Amino acid sequence: MKKYDKLVKNAAGRVVPTIINGEEHIPYKGVGKHIPDGRKFAPRLSSCANYPADGDKRVPGLKEALIRAGLKDGMTISTHHHFRNGDLIANQIFDIAHELGVKNLRWFPSASFPCHEHLIKYLEDGTINRIEGSMNGPLGKFASEGNMQGLGVLRSHGGRYQAVQDGEVQIDIAIIAAPAADPFGNANGVDGPAACGLLGFALADSQYADKVIVATDNIVPFPCIPWQIHGNYVDYVVEVDKIGIPEKIVSGTTRITKSPDRLLIAEMTAKFCDAAGIIRDGFSYQAGAGGTSLSIGNYFGDILRERGWKARFIRAGSNQYPVRMLEEGLVEYILDGQTFDLEGVRSMRENPGHVNTSPFTSYNYHGKGNFATMVDVVVLGATEVDVNFNANVVTHSDGYLLHGIGGWQNCLFSRCTILPIPLFRDRTPVVKDEVTTICGPGELIDVIVTERGLAINPLRQDLIDKVKDSGLPVKTIHELKEEAEKICGAPVKPNLTDELVAVIKWVDGTVIDAVKRVDG
Amino acid sequence: MKKYDKLVKNAAGRVVPTIINGEEHIPYKGVGKHIPDGRKFAPRLSSCANYPADGDKRVPGLKEALIRAGLKDGMTISTHHHFRNGDLIANQIFDIAHELGVKNLRWFPSASFPCHEHLIKYLEDGTINRIEGSMNGPLGKFASEGNMQGLGVLRSHGGRYQAVQDGEVQIDIAIIAAPAADPFGNANGVDGPAACGLLGFALADSQYADKVIVATDNIVPFPCIPWQIHGNYVDYVVEVDKIGIPEKIVSGTTRITKSPDRLLIAEMTAKFCDAAGIIRDGFSYQAGAGGTSLSIGNYFGDILRERGWKARFIRAGSNQYPVRMLEEGLVEYILDGQTFDLEGVRSMRENPGHVNTSPFTSYNYHGKGNFATMVDVVVLGATEVDVNFNANVVTHSDGYLLHGIGGWQNCLFSRCTILPIPLFRDRTPVVKDEVTTICGPGELIDVIVTERGLAINPLRQDLIDKVKDSGLPVKTIHELKEEAEKICGAPVKPNLTDELVAVIKWVDGTVIDAVKRVDG
Repeated sequence: MKKYDKLVKNAAGRVVPTIINGEEHIPYKGVGKHIPDGRKFAPRLSSCANYPADGDKRVPGLKEALIRAGLKDGMTISTHHHFRNGDLIANQIFDIAHELGVKNLRWFPSASFPCHEHLIKYLEDGTINRIEGSMNGPLGKFASEGNMQGLGVLRSHGGRYQAVQDGEVQIDIAIIAAPAADPFGNANGVDGPAACGLLGFALADSQYADKVIVATDNIVPFPCIPWQIHGNYVDYVVEVDKIGIPEKIVSGTTRITKSPDRLLIAEMTAKFCDAAGIIRDGFSYQAGAGGTSLSIGNYFGDILRERGWKARFIRAGSNQYPVRMLEEGLVEYILDGQTFDLEGVRSMRENPGHVNTSPFTSYNYHGKGNFATMVDVVVLGATEVDVNFNANVVTHSDGYLLHGIGGWQNCLFSRCTILPIPLFRDRTPVVKDEVTTICGPGELIDVIVTERGLAINPLRQDLIDKVKDSGLPVKTIHELKEEAEKICGAPVKPNLTDELVAVIKWVDGTVIDAVKRVDG
Repeated sequence: MKKYDKLVKNAAGRVVPTIINGEEHIPYKGVGKHIPDGRKFAPRLSSCANYPADGDKRVPGLKEALIRAGLKDGMTISTHHHFRNGDLIANQIFDIAHELGVKNLRWFPSASFPCHEHLIKYLEDGTINRIEGSMNGPLGKFASEGNMQGLGVLRSHGGRYQAVQDGEVQIDIAIIAAPAADPFGNANGVDGPAACGLLGFALADSQYADKVIVATDNIVPFPCIPWQIHGNYVDYVVEVDKIGIPEKIVSGTTRITKSPDRLLIAEMTAKFCDAAGIIRDGFSYQAGAGGTSLSIGNYFGDILRERGWKARFIRAGSNQYPVRMLEEGLVEYILDGQTFDLEGVRSMRENPGHVNTSPFTSYNYHGKGNFATMVDVVVLGATEVDVNFNANVVTHSDGYLLHGIGGWQNCLFSRCTILPIPLFRDRTPVVKDEVTTICGPGELIDVIVTERGLAINPLRQDLIDKVKDSGLPVKTIHELKEEAEKICGAPVKPNLTDELVAVIKWVDGTVIDAVKRVDG
């Protein structure tokens, strides 16, 4: 099987394959332009007659569970990344697959991390054909160098839900590592030694996979409350010694930035939001767990406190800062997709206003709407942006695929999307003529904030008008680019071949760009 | 279209049609004998591009919503019964359908109540072809007399979920009346003037209907928390003045029985459970909201309190009594499918241990297990039982179809199913040679408790052995029947024709029995 075939130029002007790992895919057509006309994937019917009447689905060990689930060559195996770099389950699954001599698997994680470097040997020996999912670090480097047998496919959190829901990716066996579970398979992420907050990234897997295995190191009697994962979707439950390394699952410490440049960017972002009238009683925002984002959230909090206002909700990635705001009464709800520190986990367990969300509720583009469009402002990172406001979040300027997409693409649908980024990194300009990889089309990116001024997308004349007398250093994107080049010189082109190693999906399942092999 | 065709004798010995309202159905094959080999129903894919970006799906009025949803002849229209006899929405829907001249609709409520007597005129004029759903009172009488154009189809709560999930019933438009909802369609039953506790009976409808309309008299800003119904499944939101009559939705008063006979039955049931070793630290039970059931729960509570034990969970139909037990610490969780009084609603709003369940989690037989099998003991009612322990819950001894099935069939899968019933009602014996309608096969019914003694199903030798020295008045089912007949005389046969008016589905979608027209 060819890794890819039939290249075409898509609506973003990028050349992408329409045959990927032997299957047909649709090139990107533009925002909101591809309307699917099919039906959701229809999982096989089950019968209670085939499940234990006492509700006890436990089997002895992961290997036994995988055998009973019918593990065989060519299957699609899914895992989730709520344990981030502390995951102890994914590696074991492929150790077992290798031991059983199973080949040519598609690994479909919601994301992979440096802890999964262990799997490179299975990518090399053909146990795993390819990874479809974000690749953070070593696995991304491995793919970038053209070493993966199949073509990588990167999807956003919402795009992953969409792909499963639509039947584009049919999961044969889902393995859901759960910090707490009962013998029936009800499971959650809030309790137990590996508590990670929630299990939303495994929701699609539970609903649509043919066989679902829950692995836990913390079995509780039925009912496991809350049941973030419904046991009614689960085939087998496995008790293991340890599913994750707690200190690598949650950092315990997420801190605002101390860098003066980043603080300046954060402050300018908050001032922009205020000047543009975005911050108001009852507004909503999404900010990530990076130092700059945390700092922006802090500024938002100061403004709310000062004016006696209350945000309606924060979309998170939660950590101690939004939790503090919730508990101080500065926000009514945290709508949380993943918890980044122990305070986030505690709050999700304790606060009724700290609400468990999923890629289905928040991000699925093939639903009847989603939450992402209702957020007043989101602040996101990027590795590069270009003069058309297109942005890249997966490859570095040297062409290496080292980051996942996360919910980034999905968040672009907010009412105002701001990328607060340094004008250059390691003397490489971040604003360029053309990004290495388009992950987000420029029409959805409203504002770029750098330490040397901000640029507003000309499509957003409303925002330009609102801040014109604010005294903020508003520049054009071209001015920002020139300023960067004056300091750093023109950016060096990455050394890329024509060979493709991965594709980037858009939120509607179309192919927005392809990633090329780095000529190392 | 013929109402029904191709009669066969099924595994329960009953003659049932295999063509019902023009569609093929499978006759009952025995408990656990019908294993489906198909796939779940696959709803149409949607795209966020077709839904308002501001998340505001409100349209002005039910009529407008029904028109936009494409209401037309022959469609299947679903509603839920969480407002019981206080529902104000279902009648309006068919008033609108009638006004628009739409004909031949299938009404697919989770149950209908006397307040829906208003719809008889639409059953007569062809606006509604038939009701598929439980018919309590006047509509059941109307059907029993052969007046409904189509054949009625009665399903249990779990069977209704199964039928929708399996695609046996494809809902064109679901109307979900919600005590609280946001403009996106997130909705719950715990807040607002028509608070009914939860909306689980509408879950399948939200997930699988082609178009979903949420109607509310209590719109709240996004996000409506908790979102028992996900807005991501909702097409339109309608604000109306009033969705239900609060005092008819929840009684405000559910009370234990004061009848000496019923108290005797309740006490004997509790004593049996104790003697059989069912009541223990960590046990679980389900008891309904009838006077006898409440009284049994009370006895269970006394035993737990006395011995310092704690139940793990109560499956409910909640009301003040289980709520009191939860708040007293006699039980860890209430797993609730519907709230019967204001205390139930309050507790569901306030107590994290009072958990929202659905026909999917609790009862769906075509899932990977369900909760019903994990309950240690359930106490249920019945209109009739026969000497083979078969039971009837829908028709009276005069043949009239006056009751719904509710979760009754689903509950039969508990570890011990007890029917505490009077030996006779209005001088008509309740234990008979043969029940008028088989709703539950005798092999799943373990114990009949009457005021004159209890009978244990011979299949449960384990239970017989356990209570043999308990001093309880254990009799055979034949002895009970004879005792009843000695007092009341042999029961009068109902005056039935051969014409069928409805069928009763088993939990797996097969047809277990048919209801005959009463010769009035």
